[in-house]
Amino acid sequence: MGSPRLDSVRLDSTRLDAQIGFLVEIDRLKTILRRTVITDGSRQENSAEHSWHIAMMATVLAEHAADEGVDVSRVIRLLLVHDIVEIDAGDTFCYDAEAASDQSERERRAADRLFGLLPPDQAEELRAAWDEFEEGTTPEARFAWAIDRLQPLLLNHRTGGYSWRLHGVAFSQAVGRFRVLESASPGLWAFALGILEEARDKGWLRDA
Amino acid sequence: MGSPRLDSVRLDSTRLDAQIGFLVEIDRLKTILRRTVITDGSRQENSAEHSWHIAMMATVLAEHAADEGVDVSRVIRLLLVHDIVEIDAGDTFCYDAEAASDQSERERRAADRLFGLLPPDQAEELRAAWDEFEEGTTPEARFAWAIDRLQPLLLNHRTGGYSWRLHGVAFSQAVGRFRVLESASPGLWAFALGILEEARDKGWLRDA
Repeated sequence: MGSPRLDSVRLDSTRLDAQIGFLVEIDRLKTILRRTVITDGSRQENSAEHSWHIAMMATVLAEHAADEGVDVSRVIRLLLVHDIVEIDAGDTFCYDAEAASDQSERERRAADRLFGLLPPDQAEELRAAWDEFEEGTTPEARFAWAIDRLQPLLLNHRTGGYSWRLHGVAFSQAVGRFRVLESASPGLWAFALGILEEARDKGWLRDA
Repeated sequence: MGSPRLDSVRLDSTRLDAQIGFLVEIDRLKTILRRTVITDGSRQENSAEHSWHIAMMATVLAEHAADEGVDVSRVIRLLLVHDIVEIDAGDTFCYDAEAASDQSERERRAADRLFGLLPPDQAEELRAAWDEFEEGTTPEARFAWAIDRLQPLLLNHRTGGYSWRLHGVAFSQAVGRFRVLESASPGLWAFALGILEEARDKGWLRDA
């Protein structure tokens, strides 16, 4: 009979192996490219650095959340986790209706596989965070959505509307996409609308 | 006399402008390259995606912290913020003694300028987080250090010791650098030592 101490070391090693396996696998998020370019215009942004940027945005902009008592640590957790499924499912361009049609099925399968690499309790925990973001019904998820929308707006604004112009995005499409900010943060919604109007006036967004 | 409501809108707009100015400026962290390469070996890692990766590592590995009751949200906050100074100061290679000599002075000036872009209360808050990480004395800072060390170890391990071989790092140097894990997390220290010994046996680290 092994001593309890030895058994627990054995268990921990299996558990740690699963954790490390997951953490190595998610390194691949650094190779998933988004449609936006970084502010110096040199290259497309990847989803891992995007995730860091929105976590910092949530840290700094938390006071603008409409819901009182939004837990910023939970918002950050949702934001850090929510793009991991793109490792299998790819980044789906928000204005691409065809790709969007099977997006949720592709992403659900990706969530099953990727979070399933973790020990069961942690797989369940991170999957719950991902589900919460997807459903978008808690105050934290709503604010996380707002931040996730606002970040590419900043990058587009600083790069002369790069991805809007490249993909011929219309003002009305963009406003529709950003309207989610209206309830999550009236202040950030007013700010975003100002930028969208400027982009339309400069011809970066089609006037339609 | 303006109404209080209008005044407060004016104040908020100045405040929001400062926050957005900071958030756009830190986008540049995506252009700061580290010595490690990402796991597919295709390119060097940048400090923004590194910051996301270590925040995820802290989330998953928190249970291995030696100090009981480490606040993982605070660890994540320290990790998200700690590399921002590299925007001005650059990434200093950990085995480069010459660059390390004026590293803390360069990074302190960078912290003054970069966090100083924020409204004063937030500048102070994020600067305090950066100072806490640098000093490394709280349980959260100690665990954050351990995670920040462990991440490039994983990347080096998965890329056949890429940056160790490129820079001729010795086993004893690496062990010295990782010894900080010993008190922060005996479990992760044992894991790291196993990898370093394997790397020495495979010739990825010089046997010295």
